[in-house]
Amino acid sequence: MTRDQLYANMLRKRSFLCVGLDPDPSKMPASLGGDLLSFNKAIIDATADYAIAFKPNLAFYEAQGPAGYEAFEQTVRYLRQHYPDQMIIADAMRGDLGNTSKAYARSFFETLDVDALTVAPYMGEDSVTPFLGYEGKWVIVLALTSNKGSMDFQMLRDSEGTPLYEHVLRKAAQWGTADNMMFVAGATRGQMLQDVRRIVPDHFLLVPGVGAQGGSLDEVAHYAMNAQCGIIVNSSRGIIHASSGDDFAQMARAKAAAMQAQMAQLLG
Amino acid sequence: MTRDQLYANMLRKRSFLCVGLDPDPSKMPASLGGDLLSFNKAIIDATADYAIAFKPNLAFYEAQGPAGYEAFEQTVRYLRQHYPDQMIIADAMRGDLGNTSKAYARSFFETLDVDALTVAPYMGEDSVTPFLGYEGKWVIVLALTSNKGSMDFQMLRDSEGTPLYEHVLRKAAQWGTADNMMFVAGATRGQMLQDVRRIVPDHFLLVPGVGAQGGSLDEVAHYAMNAQCGIIVNSSRGIIHASSGDDFAQMARAKAAAMQAQMAQLLG
Repeated sequence: MTRDQLYANMLRKRSFLCVGLDPDPSKMPASLGGDLLSFNKAIIDATADYAIAFKPNLAFYEAQGPAGYEAFEQTVRYLRQHYPDQMIIADAMRGDLGNTSKAYARSFFETLDVDALTVAPYMGEDSVTPFLGYEGKWVIVLALTSNKGSMDFQMLRDSEGTPLYEHVLRKAAQWGTADNMMFVAGATRGQMLQDVRRIVPDHFLLVPGVGAQGGSLDEVAHYAMNAQCGIIVNSSRGIIHASSGDDFAQMARAKAAAMQAQMAQLLG
Repeated sequence: MTRDQLYANMLRKRSFLCVGLDPDPSKMPASLGGDLLSFNKAIIDATADYAIAFKPNLAFYEAQGPAGYEAFEQTVRYLRQHYPDQMIIADAMRGDLGNTSKAYARSFFETLDVDALTVAPYMGEDSVTPFLGYEGKWVIVLALTSNKGSMDFQMLRDSEGTPLYEHVLRKAAQWGTADNMMFVAGATRGQMLQDVRRIVPDHFLLVPGVGAQGGSLDEVAHYAMNAQCGIIVNSSRGIIHASSGDDFAQMARAKAAAMQAQMAQLLG
């Protein structure tokens, strides 16, 4: 999916919502018997009207062993087949030595055909660039996360006062372009999003942490939107586990609709 | 596996060799038809006499889809069943938000029962600590890698000249102990290993980059060994793909034997 296609989807659907497909069996209705794929299909069908992207986090699938991994793949296939306009983001936090990153890139962009993949930057350029050679595919580099531990290293400052996450933004922005790279920037960091936007004015930002984690959608939009929207806001638990009963899909739809309504206003 | 058990294995086998199970189908003999599990079994049987650990890198399995993931799990089971004294290190570079890390911890330490897991530190404390609550299990934190890109961020210095990787070592060492945490420290960084050893005198170091990547075993031992050995040296391609013909297992055994002989001398 190209940048223009993504933006066109946002305008058409009046939404920049990404639904995080992080299914927790303990929060799923008992009637599903822990079936991740059935759960995901119901969530996707219920929320696709209001979303422009879906983001399965691999951890939740791998935690179930090979069957979970199979459910992840089938979820991707279901999206590809029934909702071809949705961006599929594999939240996998990969990033390894060159050879290994190449294997991951093949796996996610060729075998699976997802649109985007999150990567961790700690190992530097040769761990990220193998993901950049794919037409219409995106690398989403972890820059500023919304968890408490993000203060441990991301905020470490060099002798000129520049924090590590700024170095990550500046360096990584040289490896790719605003057409094949995005950055993760957590919603709970409020004004820091303004600093991120100053450094990478044109790149899309994937913003987790709105909703269950406490970030405000208005604040995120205020600090981080640009002329082409420029943000994809993710909500996972707040939508998919809004109810743990048999009305989970209905409740998810209501939550997604409410977020989309707010987003439509913010898109102006 | 406890620290004492690991060290006892090293003394008994006169080895601190870890064999990296990173099978590349294009380098496997055609007769195997790309069967990762058969390849791994042959490598394990051929090299276990000379090794104290095996380290499958998940990327090489995930690149093959669910069948690959299944081969990874079966490899772990094969090791557990036939070589219970071998440490199994899942090289997965995980590390995510608290909830997600918890899911990974369950997956690797409970469902799969590996002994150790590599994690990336970028997201800080709450992405690492969920892995620490398991008796006899280890977290191996990425500190200093041996690739070119490691210079991009790991060597960034704060106002006092302290590089990021030192911050990672110092902070992470406060989260765990030398009994449940190790660090990845690349072999090609030569004298830097001495700095690592100064900061974490007691922790085991997992040292990749010897052999195919150019690091010297003598140099690694010189800078990084401690009174209880203190290092696990990994070799992947240099052993498992020493030959791409039908003699691959035989050649792997010869390479592993040669490394073990050198290690026996270094253990004194």
